[in-house]
Amino acid sequence: MRLRAFAAALLLLAAPAARAEDGYDLWLRYKPVEASAKGAYAARAAAIAPASDTPTMKVARAELERGLTGLVGKPASAAAGTRDGVILLGAASDPAVAKLNLPLKSLGEDGYLIRTLPVNGKATTVIAANRDIGVLYGVFRYLELIQTRQPVASLDLASAPKVKLRMLNHWDNLNRTVERGYSGQSIFDWWKLPDHVDPRMVDYARANASLGINGAVLNNVNAKADSLTAPFIDKAAALADTFRPYGIKVYLSARFSAPIEIGGLKTADPLDPAVRAFWKAKADEIYKEIPDFGGFLVKANSEGQPGPQDYGRTHVDGANMLAQAVGPHGGVVIWRAFVYSHEQPDDRAKQGYTEFKAFDGQFADNVVIQVKNGAIDFQPREPFHPLFGAMPKSNIGMEFQITKEYLGFATHLVYLGPLFEETLKADTMVKGKGSTVAKVVDGQLDGRKLTVMAGVANIGSDRNWSGSQFDQANWYVFGRLAWDPEADTRAIARDWAKMTFTNDERFVKPAVDMMMGSREAAVDYMTPLGLHHQMGEGHHYGPGPWVSGGPRADWTSVYYAKAGPDGIGFDRTPTGSDATSQYAPPVGACFADLKCVDEKDLLWFHHLPWDYRLNSGDTLWDGMVKHYSRGVSYVDGMNRTWASLAPYVDAPRHAEVADFLKIQRNEAQWWRDASIAWFQTFSKRPLPAGEKPPEKSLEYYQGLKFRFAPGNGL
Amino acid sequence: MRLRAFAAALLLLAAPAARAEDGYDLWLRYKPVEASAKGAYAARAAAIAPASDTPTMKVARAELERGLTGLVGKPASAAAGTRDGVILLGAASDPAVAKLNLPLKSLGEDGYLIRTLPVNGKATTVIAANRDIGVLYGVFRYLELIQTRQPVASLDLASAPKVKLRMLNHWDNLNRTVERGYSGQSIFDWWKLPDHVDPRMVDYARANASLGINGAVLNNVNAKADSLTAPFIDKAAALADTFRPYGIKVYLSARFSAPIEIGGLKTADPLDPAVRAFWKAKADEIYKEIPDFGGFLVKANSEGQPGPQDYGRTHVDGANMLAQAVGPHGGVVIWRAFVYSHEQPDDRAKQGYTEFKAFDGQFADNVVIQVKNGAIDFQPREPFHPLFGAMPKSNIGMEFQITKEYLGFATHLVYLGPLFEETLKADTMVKGKGSTVAKVVDGQLDGRKLTVMAGVANIGSDRNWSGSQFDQANWYVFGRLAWDPEADTRAIARDWAKMTFTNDERFVKPAVDMMMGSREAAVDYMTPLGLHHQMGEGHHYGPGPWVSGGPRADWTSVYYAKAGPDGIGFDRTPTGSDATSQYAPPVGACFADLKCVDEKDLLWFHHLPWDYRLNSGDTLWDGMVKHYSRGVSYVDGMNRTWASLAPYVDAPRHAEVADFLKIQRNEAQWWRDASIAWFQTFSKRPLPAGEKPPEKSLEYYQGLKFRFAPGNGL
Repeated sequence: MRLRAFAAALLLLAAPAARAEDGYDLWLRYKPVEASAKGAYAARAAAIAPASDTPTMKVARAELERGLTGLVGKPASAAAGTRDGVILLGAASDPAVAKLNLPLKSLGEDGYLIRTLPVNGKATTVIAANRDIGVLYGVFRYLELIQTRQPVASLDLASAPKVKLRMLNHWDNLNRTVERGYSGQSIFDWWKLPDHVDPRMVDYARANASLGINGAVLNNVNAKADSLTAPFIDKAAALADTFRPYGIKVYLSARFSAPIEIGGLKTADPLDPAVRAFWKAKADEIYKEIPDFGGFLVKANSEGQPGPQDYGRTHVDGANMLAQAVGPHGGVVIWRAFVYSHEQPDDRAKQGYTEFKAFDGQFADNVVIQVKNGAIDFQPREPFHPLFGAMPKSNIGMEFQITKEYLGFATHLVYLGPLFEETLKADTMVKGKGSTVAKVVDGQLDGRKLTVMAGVANIGSDRNWSGSQFDQANWYVFGRLAWDPEADTRAIARDWAKMTFTNDERFVKPAVDMMMGSREAAVDYMTPLGLHHQMGEGHHYGPGPWVSGGPRADWTSVYYAKAGPDGIGFDRTPTGSDATSQYAPPVGACFADLKCVDEKDLLWFHHLPWDYRLNSGDTLWDGMVKHYSRGVSYVDGMNRTWASLAPYVDAPRHAEVADFLKIQRNEAQWWRDASIAWFQTFSKRPLPAGEKPPEKSLEYYQGLKFRFAPGNGL
Repeated sequence: MRLRAFAAALLLLAAPAARAEDGYDLWLRYKPVEASAKGAYAARAAAIAPASDTPTMKVARAELERGLTGLVGKPASAAAGTRDGVILLGAASDPAVAKLNLPLKSLGEDGYLIRTLPVNGKATTVIAANRDIGVLYGVFRYLELIQTRQPVASLDLASAPKVKLRMLNHWDNLNRTVERGYSGQSIFDWWKLPDHVDPRMVDYARANASLGINGAVLNNVNAKADSLTAPFIDKAAALADTFRPYGIKVYLSARFSAPIEIGGLKTADPLDPAVRAFWKAKADEIYKEIPDFGGFLVKANSEGQPGPQDYGRTHVDGANMLAQAVGPHGGVVIWRAFVYSHEQPDDRAKQGYTEFKAFDGQFADNVVIQVKNGAIDFQPREPFHPLFGAMPKSNIGMEFQITKEYLGFATHLVYLGPLFEETLKADTMVKGKGSTVAKVVDGQLDGRKLTVMAGVANIGSDRNWSGSQFDQANWYVFGRLAWDPEADTRAIARDWAKMTFTNDERFVKPAVDMMMGSREAAVDYMTPLGLHHQMGEGHHYGPGPWVSGGPRADWTSVYYAKAGPDGIGFDRTPTGSDATSQYAPPVGACFADLKCVDEKDLLWFHHLPWDYRLNSGDTLWDGMVKHYSRGVSYVDGMNRTWASLAPYVDAPRHAEVADFLKIQRNEAQWWRDASIAWFQTFSKRPLPAGEKPPEKSLEYYQGLKFRFAPGNGL
């Protein structure tokens, strides 16, 4: 027996206590404002005047009342103009708002305006919008102002989302497992739906609405056709009814072969009239139950999923057929560009572009091509996907992964804001400097209106929703960036930290600093200098740079690292796979040019000798080793920082984070040691001075097996 | 779109609210006593004086403080005799207790005494025991007295458990699925253990300790050998460390073939010296990590699991080998008698007895044979298992199933108290009248000391632990019966209802009445008059009386009902399988005699013509139909009763129960209708007057498929 880390937690929990903080409340904790500041807020938020009684206005009012009750005290009900401190909630068409002549037009469908103004000479705050949902978004913003201790006495702010569809993609199976899920079961309890809707569904909707998320794909892109049968439509409808007041539409992943599996047809050929009739009838059936159904998400002809190519047809044939089925109802089809062929032995990084680029302009207006941020698969770092900017006559959506399949599951503290921001700020140069990915995604660059930002959700049945306290920040930053892809992710982290923990700057500054560097640290200890796809096989847990063999080369690690006595890295320049030519010329030329390419992408694009000189003057081998070690050191630092923040954090959440940081520390060391042990068999070079050798033998690391790793989603 | 049941819940939850009741607190809610009664309790519970500072005494003191703080106000710390109203906690060896000369001897290892007495003339309550764990049990009992509003001013009560090992069997897999689990994932998060121990593990231990449960088998009886590898022993040790202060030992299910799978051996033959050495070394390894490890639970040569018979050896050979490995450490081997052979075409109900009876007296002293309550498999009703009373020279333990595999999963309100009580009060007659199963299980009948009552847990990651609020009562009643197998399950239900909901008799009486009849209702709408094993195939959800074919007859429904034009029922009399002869003569003779056998067991033992006359005067067919309908009517009544209890129950829990009762109503109707539709094809008789025909065709019911039913535990 040894002393174990939970001893502290145990003693804590044995003591009498009110129900402890456990993360369930997310960033919507609404804890009391400190006494010195409370009065000023309370004076401005003394009463609520909702201008109407629609379902969305009801939840907007209820949320405001709930938030104010917690923060500054229960508000009264009073009409605007009858006293100071009334908050008037209303849409443009509500008479109480209309008569104020507010500049709402430019706010669009979902934006809001919050303004302090006198009504009958009484100090009033109006939260107004063109639609009720904008008012709800404004309410969450107003509460955020108080939660983050901003002044509210004289407000004049307006905000409108830059992206139309701000969506979560749940890779949740109908048996409640979650593919690449590290936070328990699916929150969708299909078995008890529709007869019982877990109250948690309301909190799920609240949390998403607080970020402006307005869509949820309920089931895994590796879909079962069952999700399109009547019993499951009924279940989805129960969720849609619950989410509707919060402005969240439901979508379903559609299995392309459903006409065969549940339609009794012999084919799913998208040009077959019976198949087209099946999908039209299916769409009609769904819209009868869910009048505001969002549409279908489709993974077709990718990783074994069925698709139009099975019948000699194209992505355009498949997507447009579905688009025609849902179009009359106002639905959309989101067609994933994550494809790579079994037959073509081409560089996997090139295949999405190769398959889709030529179709630009051929997809129906209500089709969106959903493109992952990078061309491989949600790696710790990837250059932006070459399809961004390459299809100006198509709707191009972004797919980020919030769940950390390749970034340490739930137990590594890795704030994804910088990863998302790096991609969004990347400049495609397709229309000259400033043609950022963000401007492709929000439609500015090409004047597209049907825009999408999707995140693969990290939400599950765990009490803390996301598997860890800090993974909540990844859900949060995704939502904030979907609203504004050009937002600053440090500022977002600060808002999150304040609302989730405390406004005390002694906490916020070090915690946010720690978060901001955490992703680079993960890159360092996992796959520095442009390395990628070096994880364990299947479950993707831990290091597996030796993974080789199996059904296809591009599922192995050695395919991507191409380590050998001569060096390491994947040559994607014109002398290699020429993937660089898929980018706009100045970008591709830079990637291909050792004098121009950023070292962070070095081995993504170049195969280089072990003694290649880095900017630091180190050889490539020495530099690699130092990167690995730097990553481990950073996690050491996070452990120290977090320990020092104990005075500012409730004990249960502090203990959980501390436990996970220790796991991360051990696994960062493991990644470093296993990677060095493996690559040293090729470099044949000693470690740089001062670098410790791996703790165990290469054989030890290669022998580790994890039969019960989570996230396989069986 | 239709109006949906959750509308009420939705509105409720959108409203501002303190954290709602959700069932997490179980029967340990410790809500404030009403003002009129609080003073009297507070006076008696004003201060706590723990006599020592051991880990168990610490949690006993903390629990008492937590409970009193919630119920009557935070207690002070004060030594006994310094003021009135001190509660003195201590073990026999603590000086403060020793000097009181209390009659503790007869309390045994786990019993407790609670007595009011003067110390230095000050009114004092002493909670004393021979060991610290008894004090903790006494603390929970004392809190229960207040929770159920019993007087505490003049106490003199003592209680000691009649069964030594009071255990939960978790059928939890290492990937966190749960076989036959309907309450979410396994609460054991193997992936994060041992580095992180979920604080919920402490609440799990508290809840079990409050019932006197003192053992937990952590993994499924369909076991993976991995659970015996070093990493998993380390994980189990972390749980053991957490549970230890609460008196709960951990056990592991052991896969009999582990010597091959993880030991590098070619055989698992229990007489092979290398195999014996493997198990001895494995036991030593476990005990090094977990010095108070409880022992192994083994499912061998049953339903495809490996066992000694694979090597031509016997259950005795297998069990005693393991017993020898754990014996020196004080461990036990619990060997399940749930076996039925692939080869023998004998009545499955007979095979456990047939295989084990002859071994009586041959098992080692630290082996317990764990016998299911009935001879088939946890059916809604089974006659008691013939092995009870048949092996007086062996330790015979009871295995109940708390999770409702055959009783409606989590959404049917079925209180299992009457099922457990019916079995325990059944008279084996082996030593004359009064030789009840309870007296076999608690060792009285045969003077056994190593006694076991095990329950297959219904605990999972769901917030409410058990999948539904009322399924908590099944965990509760199991624990109370394990402490005292002769306890009254109505009284237990009353205690549970009071602590879980309210002491208001306007709630307690109707709620408990409803609970007490609920199991008979399930028997009626599922399998009346002794029918059994009529459920859906594989998942065991819903009716499947037509199930036939497949790999073995005794996994079908038709094998058990034996319905035909001539009648229905399984002849287990001497003219049939002669299973009745496995019981003591007066009991078996009664079962075999139509004039003696209770009608509740009629078709379990007899094959009878459709026009057989029941006691009611009805034909068998008419009586069957009326039983089915009576079950449905009872559920109708529960719906009405529950609706009327809304004033006494918090809205969230009331809504959840109401939703589930509606599901139960629909499924009860489905069971009735599908069963009648099927059996009518044999009876060829009309329904009795006033009975409605099935709502749908037999083909409809037969066509229903449930691919994603929970509990398969993949």
